[in-house]
Amino acid sequence: MYQSTITITLRPSILDVQGKAVELGIHTLGMNEVENVRIGKSIQMNVNASTEDEAKRITEEACKKLLANSVMEDFTFTVKKV
Amino acid sequence: MYQSTITITLRPSILDVQGKAVELGIHTLGMNEVENVRIGKSIQMNVNASTEDEAKRITEEACKKLLANSVMEDFTFTVKKV
Repeated sequence: MYQSTITITLRPSILDVQGKAVELGIHTLGMNEVENVRIGKSIQMNVNASTEDEAKRITEEACKKLLANSVMEDFTFTVKKV
Repeated sequence: MYQSTITITLRPSILDVQGKAVELGIHTLGMNEVENVRIGKSIQMNVNASTEDEAKRITEEACKKLLANSVMEDFTFTVKKV
């Protein structure tokens, strides 16, 4: 059994309105040192695979087919044995 | 200038309905090896701080005051110089 941790981020050229809203909120709290906030998704899942390569293949397939929007988002992931 | 990468996850005891829905979607695509999907947030932001300790302090303050719901969520973060 492997555990995959996937991070999905908006591509740099895409305006992140949620991040802008959070940045405004942080500034309203007085923390003006914070800027360029960008918000993505972090997905953790278990993969029943016999090898690490197979776990990576399944994770990548899930990202491409369902989890990430390849037009607007990038994804990275790590896989570890659990 | 430092860049903070924050990961916010639902506490293990909290039911993750979004994760359950994604898991169902993945199974519908035929990937039955995947289970226990949990979805969190990944936040990246720049912090104008002179030292790494100060950047960590500001990041932790932002998490506690705004980004994470301390009743339902846990957060971890890393800070690197950019």
